[in-house]
Order: sequence, then structure tokens, then C-alpha cells
Amino acid sequence: MATKQQRLPREVRERQMIDAAVRVFSRSGYHTASVEEIAEAAGISKPMVYIYLGSKERLFTACIHREADRVVEAVRAAVHADEPPELGLWSGLRVFFRFVADNRDSWAVLYQHARTQGEPFAQEVSEARRRVIEEITRMVVAGTRLGGGERIVTERDAEILARIAIGAADSLSDWLLEHPEESPDGLIDRVTNLALVGVDRYTTGDIQPS
Amino acid sequence: MATKQQRLPREVRERQMIDAAVRVFSRSGYHTASVEEIAEAAGISKPMVYIYLGSKERLFTACIHREADRVVEAVRAAVHADEPPELGLWSGLRVFFRFVADNRDSWAVLYQHARTQGEPFAQEVSEARRRVIEEITRMVVAGTRLGGGERIVTERDAEILARIAIGAADSLSDWLLEHPEESPDGLIDRVTNLALVGVDRYTTGDIQPS
Repeated sequence: MATKQQRLPREVRERQMIDAAVRVFSRSGYHTASVEEIAEAAGISKPMVYIYLGSKERLFTACIHREADRVVEAVRAAVHADEPPELGLWSGLRVFFRFVADNRDSWAVLYQHARTQGEPFAQEVSEARRRVIEEITRMVVAGTRLGGGERIVTERDAEILARIAIGAADSLSDWLLEHPEESPDGLIDRVTNLALVGVDRYTTGDIQPS
Repeated sequence: MATKQQRLPREVRERQMIDAAVRVFSRSGYHTASVEEIAEAAGISKPMVYIYLGSKERLFTACIHREADRVVEAVRAAVHADEPPELGLWSGLRVFFRFVADNRDSWAVLYQHARTQGEPFAQEVSEARRRVIEEITRMVVAGTRLGGGERIVTERDAEILARIAIGAADSLSDWLLEHPEESPDGLIDRVTNLALVGVDRYTTGDIQPS
């Protein structure tokens, strides 16, 4: 066993540890989870875990970072560069809600819980959010540039749209986790329906924004 | 001075302490602020502060609660029961951004900072958010009920709209504080403009949500 462990490259070993840590933290929460439990779940000795990732705190931070990468990757893969940014926003939102629903336990611990647990976890979550905001801003800027380089949405407004999207996604993902009887696609249908009611009321002259 | 202090009713004394505490926490942050500083700013002895509010932690919690009441009150006052809920949402959003901009320092400490600082502060912030969500849900439900009691938006969809509104408001208020060169009304103009671009693109058939 010891010999076999030594043959694995560092990144493979780290990935095993983080996979195990995500499972253990999701099941037990940050405070209850122990490095021993994680080492056991990873099939690695406890001293080895300390050598690789230093401490329970650093393990948890690595989990937040890795799961944030996964969600960014999933959203990015769902959005195609050649579609209008509004469609991209819907596709991104749909994939995001599916991710949250499929990773219910890890999301509750690594995002919802971590963002309220003080430093360094809140900082790590906040940086992950920033990466997503930048990604959406780039997408909106790229998707709303017309032929001659002219823009229908300024870069600053694209940033605003990204903030609205992430704020809404965030808040709706909390709602989704509080309502296990609802599905990600059902939530998207509800949001679509509200958007259409809104468009309808604007265009029939019932209301004017101001 | 001691005699004069004793004549004040408890709620007046508490209000003085909380006013002073909001100023001191906003200026110094939670960790640096001391109960001595707060007592001095309130013109009250330090033992008296402990008698009334128990600890720095309880003082801070009382500040979060009081400022949350203020923001809920300001938003409620801006929204009229007889206007369509979309107009109510815009009015509420405008007043909310003004509140944040006018109370920049206290907002940064009592909301942005508090929500990431673990219990009991994150809990207090989360309850304040819940009160606002309930308020918006009630407003949307009341405003979209037609003559015969029929609804164009279900109660559950009203809740979704409230979550979108609070998530977006939250995320945009962070943006506003990061951009001191922007004004609350300017931000509302940007959001309005984005909504109109969106409505325009939907109604001209450029895009379809799905």
C-alpha cells in the first residue's frame, strides 16, 4: 500500500484527497469533519494528508476552490460563443441550477456555509464569485458587439448585467435547496414565465420603468 | 450627569447607545471598536453599556437589527399599495440604493462584513434578508391580484420574483460601493436601460427565452 501510494504523481494524490474531503465535509460539515476521516476516505495516511495539504483549514479551502472551478467549467461549457448573450445567460443559469441540485450537499457546505464562516473561507468564496462575474461580463461584451465593433451594451453595463445574474442565481439557488420538491428545469420555467409576464406588461403599456 | 442619565427611559438610553455603536463600528470595524469607545460616544458609562446590552457582540447584533429595520422601513415607505408591483420593485430598488449610498460606512460593516463573520451575525443578517423577501412577496401577491381574486402571478412565483429582486439588489449594492463615482439614480438608469434593451430584443424576435 505504501509502495503503491508513492508511485502516484502528486496531482493525482491531491485530487484523491480533495475528492474524499468534499465527500466528508459535505456529509459532516466543516466543524465535525476530521482529517482522520478524510485520510481514511481517501485511503491515505493522516500524516500524508498533512504533508500534502497542511491543515483541515487548507483542505477546506482547496475544496472550495476545486468545486468553484467545476461550477465555472460547467457554466462555461454550456454557453456558446456564437449565441446571443441572453440565450447564454439562460443556458448558464440552467446548468448552474442543475449543478447546485446535483451537488446539493457539497453546495450547502462549500458555498452556503463557507461564505458566512469568516476568513479565509469567505474570501475564497468571494474570489470564486468574482471569477464568475468576469466570465459573464466577457460573454455579454463579446455577444453584444455588432459588426463594426459598435456595442449595444457598454462594458460597464455588461458588468451590471453580470452582477444581476450572479445575485439572482445565488439567491435562487438558496431557494432551490430550500424546496427539494422543485427541479432546476422547473425553476427555469418559472423564471422564464415571470420574464414573459414582465415583457408583456411593458409592451402593452401597463407599466413603464423609471 | 449621573442623575440626568437615570431620568432617561430605557428605550431612549438604548437608542443613544445603538446610535453611538453604529457610528463607532462603521468607523473602526467590529474587531477594532471597543465598548469604551462606544460608551464615550454615547456619553454613557461603560458599566451602563454592559448593563443595558451585555457585550460588544450583543451591541453589534442590536446594530444590525436596528439598521435592517431602517432599510425595511425606507423601502416600505417608498412602495405604494395601489401601484403595479413592477413599479413598486423599481421604487423599492431606488430607495434601497439611496439608503446604501447614504449609509456607506454602516452598510459595509453591518451588512457586508457581518454576513461573512460567522454566528450570530450571519444569522441576524440572514433573518433581515428573510423579512425583506417576505415583504416583497406580499407586495407582489397583493399587486397582481385581479378583480375577482384571480392571480396573474402565483404566490410561489411571487416568492421567486422576490428572491431575484433581493439577490440582484444585494449584488448591485456591492457594485455601487465599489464604484463611489456612481450614484444610486445612475445605477437605476443603467438597470432600466438594460431592461429596455432586453424587452426590445425579445419583442423584435431576436431572442426567445427557453
